[in-house]
Parts: sequence; C-alpha cells; structure tokens
Amino acid sequence: MDAIAVYDNGDAPELIDVPRPTPASEEALIRVLRAGIDGTDHEVIAGEHGVSPDDDDYLVLGHEAVGVVEDPNGTELTAGETVVPMVRRPPGAENEYFQRDEPDMAPTGQYHERGIVGAHGYMCEYFTSRPEYLVSVPETVAQYGFLIEPVSITEKALEHALAARAAFEWTPESALVLGNGSLGLLTLAMLDQSGFDRTYCLGRRDRPDPTIDIIESLGATYVDSRETPVDRVADGYEPMDLVFEATGHAPHAFETVEALAPNGVGALVGVPSSHEFEIDGGTLHEELVLHNKALVGTVNSGRTHFEHAVETLESLPEWFLDDLVTDVVGVDAFERAFSADDHTIKTAVEF
Amino acid sequence: MDAIAVYDNGDAPELIDVPRPTPASEEALIRVLRAGIDGTDHEVIAGEHGVSPDDDDYLVLGHEAVGVVEDPNGTELTAGETVVPMVRRPPGAENEYFQRDEPDMAPTGQYHERGIVGAHGYMCEYFTSRPEYLVSVPETVAQYGFLIEPVSITEKALEHALAARAAFEWTPESALVLGNGSLGLLTLAMLDQSGFDRTYCLGRRDRPDPTIDIIESLGATYVDSRETPVDRVADGYEPMDLVFEATGHAPHAFETVEALAPNGVGALVGVPSSHEFEIDGGTLHEELVLHNKALVGTVNSGRTHFEHAVETLESLPEWFLDDLVTDVVGVDAFERAFSADDHTIKTAVEF
Repeated sequence: MDAIAVYDNGDAPELIDVPRPTPASEEALIRVLRAGIDGTDHEVIAGEHGVSPDDDDYLVLGHEAVGVVEDPNGTELTAGETVVPMVRRPPGAENEYFQRDEPDMAPTGQYHERGIVGAHGYMCEYFTSRPEYLVSVPETVAQYGFLIEPVSITEKALEHALAARAAFEWTPESALVLGNGSLGLLTLAMLDQSGFDRTYCLGRRDRPDPTIDIIESLGATYVDSRETPVDRVADGYEPMDLVFEATGHAPHAFETVEALAPNGVGALVGVPSSHEFEIDGGTLHEELVLHNKALVGTVNSGRTHFEHAVETLESLPEWFLDDLVTDVVGVDAFERAFSADDHTIKTAVEF
Repeated sequence: MDAIAVYDNGDAPELIDVPRPTPASEEALIRVLRAGIDGTDHEVIAGEHGVSPDDDDYLVLGHEAVGVVEDPNGTELTAGETVVPMVRRPPGAENEYFQRDEPDMAPTGQYHERGIVGAHGYMCEYFTSRPEYLVSVPETVAQYGFLIEPVSITEKALEHALAARAAFEWTPESALVLGNGSLGLLTLAMLDQSGFDRTYCLGRRDRPDPTIDIIESLGATYVDSRETPVDRVADGYEPMDLVFEATGHAPHAFETVEALAPNGVGALVGVPSSHEFEIDGGTLHEELVLHNKALVGTVNSGRTHFEHAVETLESLPEWFLDDLVTDVVGVDAFERAFSADDHTIKTAVEF
C-alpha cells in the first residue's frame, strides 16, 4: 500500500510501498481518509525531532488523521464507522497513564507517538489500532476530521490553563494567541466561541495575507510583532487575561508574563529548540508573584480532549474551516502538501 | 500609645507615641497581643518597599498580628474575642475583590496593605478595623496567632498550585522548599502534614544550625545550595513534584522548572528585586511544554486562606512552633526583634 515516509538518512518525505498491516488480536483495521500536516511533521523530516520504529530505517509520517473502520476484527467497532486515532501508544505494556486515558501526561520513555517517536504514523492507506486509542466521530466531520487532533491540543491547553485559575473568581475578557499558523488560527476561532470579549492574534506578515483575513473575519485584532513585540502588547493594546503561545519561539514564553494582565495565565504549547538569551528575570519573577500570574506548559492530549474537540470542530464556522484548509491533495501530488507559499495555511493528503 | 514605626526619611524602626485610635462606625477596637516580623518589614525599613499613609510621614509597621477585641463598638464581635487581622484594605470604596473576600487577587492600586502600603500596621497597642477584615481564632492559638498570616500565604500558594494540577490525576510525592527562613520552614512543616512522602528544604547554612535541626526533626532532607544548586536538585536528589520558591532570588524561579518532575508545579511566593541574567530559555520553555510543567505566582491571601491557616496552625507540632519562634520581646526591647544572629528564625513583639 501507499505510505508517505521519511528515511532515517533522508531529508524529504517519500512515497513508498509497504505491506498493508494485518490487525493483531484486539486491533481493528482502519482505512485512512485524510491525514493532516503540521510543524511537527516538518521537524521530523528535517531530523530535528522523531525516531523511527526499532526495526525500521524509516518512519511513516502523520499524526493527524481521520479514517473509517475497514475491519473491526472482533472489536466493539463497526465497519464503516468514522474514527480519529489518538497519537500516543504504550511503548510496551500499557502503563497507568494509558489506563486512565491520560497518555498526554505520560513522561518521556513511557509512550510512543505514532508518526513521530517510535511508531509509524497514519499517512498511509491503512493502519491498525486497538479501539481504546480511537475516537468515534460523526460522519459529518469526516471531511475536516484531521483537524480534531490539533483542536484537541488546544482543548487540553485551555483546560489546564483554566484549571490554574479555578481557585478564585476569574472572568477573563481578553485573549492573545501568539502565532498565526494553523494551530494559532484554530485556537483563535475556539477562543472566539469561548466567550472572550476581545481576541488578538500575533504574527509577522504583511497585508494582504490570508491569515490576517481570517483573523479579522473572526472579529479578532491582528498584532504585527514587528511593530508591537510581545512584551509591548499590554501597552500597545491591552493586558491579556490569557496568552496562548503557539510559536515555539522561546523568548515569547517569557515575554508572555509581561503581556498578561494581573491574575492572567499563559498557556504554552509551542515546542522550542535550545535558545540562550538574557532576561530581566527579577521583573518577570516579580510580575508572576505580585500579580498572581501563571504559566502552564502542555503537550499532546488525552481522550476527553479528543472528545471535546469533536464537538468544537462541529461548532466552528464552515467558512473558517474552508479558508483554513488551503489544500487537500491526492497521494500522487503529496509533495505539494509539504511545500508552502504565502497562501498555504493547512494542508492534508487524501488517500 | 506605643507604636513601632519607620519614618519616610528613616532607616530603622522607632518606638513612637501616637494617639490611640478611635473606631469609626462599623469598626471595632482591637488590642494587639503580638505582632510578628518578616522579610517584608525589613524591606519596608530599608526603603525598598512600602508607602506611608497619605497624611503621615511615617508608617506603623506590622502586618502579622493577633489581638483581642477591646471594644466591639456595635459590630457583631464580642469583647475579649481573639482575632487575627487580614492585611489588605480597600484604598477607598470597597471594590469587587474585597466584596468577594479575595483582596489577594486585587490588582495594584485597588488595595492598601496595613503595615506595608498606604495604611498603618499592627505593631502598636491598638488598631481599628471593620469586622470583615478580622478572622476569629480560638484563644488557644493566641500565643502563636501572629503566624496565621504567613501560614495563610502558603495556604493560598498551595491552593493555587494544586488547582493548576487539578485537570489530571496527580499524586505528588516529593516537594522541595527553596529557603529555610521562617516562611520556608512553616511551609515545610505544612507539606509534611499534607501527605508528601519526601520533603526537602534548600538553604545555604553550615551545621550546626537551628534551621537545619528543624528541617531534620521534621523528617525532611536539608539541601545545601552551595553543593547542589536548584538546577541540579533533580539529579542530586530527585525530580520534585512540587517546588515552593520562598527566597525571592530571581534565578531560583527559573531554575525551579529544572528541579520539577514531569507534570510538576512550582509555586512562587518570594518577592524578587530587579535582576538581569542569562537563561537557556529554549530548554526551560521546552521543559515546561514537553513535561506539562507549570509555574504559579501568588501574593497575599484571602479570607478562606486565613481560616484554613487557623486549623493548620492548630495542627502543627508544639515543638516546631517553639523552635521556630526564637524570640518574643516586649516593646521596650523591640530593637532586638529586628536584629538577627545565627540563632534567629522568627521574632515577634509583645504589647
């Protein structure tokens, strides 16, 4: 069957032919409809991140997917059912984090990530999975079902950030998303629906730009970081009750503290690389303490986040999803899904 | 009446004579039993922090106190009742934060702090207060009732830190307190009673030392920061589920991220001064994100924290309180309460 993979010694995705997998006992066979591409895929391709399975010198890409059950193989699933796979799997025997549907809280070494670390992904015609790592979704969300995984990332981050403000009465009004990539825009649309009165999205693009068009169509304000850096946003616009850091640019994680309003919280989801720099640590520390601010890092997502993400995806405006997903290509044109120009926001490969 | 105050142009506490205050309508008159001294008092004396009331060129010190109701003056209080005053007061009309008993969440400008910012403190024979800013305490805790305010600071910080871990199943076992001052030791004793299996306290003192004796008598491990800096604690001892930062040394706030175990939380209560330094921000940011870590800053405390602090104080071992409070001096010897030697941990002035 067709699979899109990167070889350990390669630096570009390749279309390869691999055997169609046979489901083991208690596993179903899933036929992939679409698999999305995000920044992590590009990092895996560039060799900055990711590990191939032990027995292979290549990794099938893809951790954002939607498919249909081809063969339930005796599991509780039904043939033809639409499903979205979760990303993490136990590296051997199931551990406590998987047992309680919180694989996202498993420490390093206690999980594989399909399409990223130690296990093949979903960018192929078929994959197998135990049913407990699949989330049933309505057929109506199949078209954009590959967005459920990224939406679940934000579901988790917002759940953790809000929990961190649950010990007192908090009525947030303003939110800033750092990063106008696909996750940033998805988050902005979600915040827009979560009752925030004023939302902002920071990027560094010139107009005309399709992401700025989406930001403004959502009723949010575009903040150009070249004119208003993160640590000036509070003065230039307003102090933010919530900041969602989705760029992975390490200085932003710390500047977030300065962008926050008193009692605000920064949710950090972008994954940075090593980066040494000077900070006014005294001022940041003082801001955290004297103004009751919090920073909450989160990664991956658990079953409840996937389940909430299904509802969230159903609630997002159709125009938004249509504008966000700029290209869905067939396998033969897969390379186009990995390239980007000024109009590319989110792409997927269709099988 | 006697009051211990610092003049705006002074740099040492002075015993002064001021008129005994007359309670306004809806205010009671409180006779002070004891008032504790902490680092904030020393910062106010040194002029690093604090503002005198508008109409005066001096500030009566003291924000940790216990007293008895001398004159209820028509309020619901009873003469002879033991009370502990909260610290913050509305700077004018009561605002929403005071209305919901969360003065600790009021932003700068929306509160005064008695004995610190804009209002006289409790280090004097009598003070007046509306009853809603007083917490009734059993007479049995009157002796060490001046510790209720610092205990309430930790009650709040732990409540906020635990809230930040409430979105998933978290069963912390290890905790590290940064700082072996009186707040650090109080917190260590509290953690010891909160079900942490292994507790640690970091300082930079040589043995023999009374704080190390207390740490070890509590069953905790003393960590000498000169041998094991904060960012090496995870390797030298173990990664910590909870870190409580009570030193106000800004680099510690950031090193805390490295001391944390996956899914751990750092509670920051120490107040730093300006301090610029280099950090490996990429690694810290990555640690926060990939290991679901959180940093939660908190300041001051609300009514529920004072109420919990009363119960906590009652539960702390008597030997611990006796060892912690190294000196309680009369007004005539007040200067001794502000001086410190190797044996000083916590002092108070008795009226």
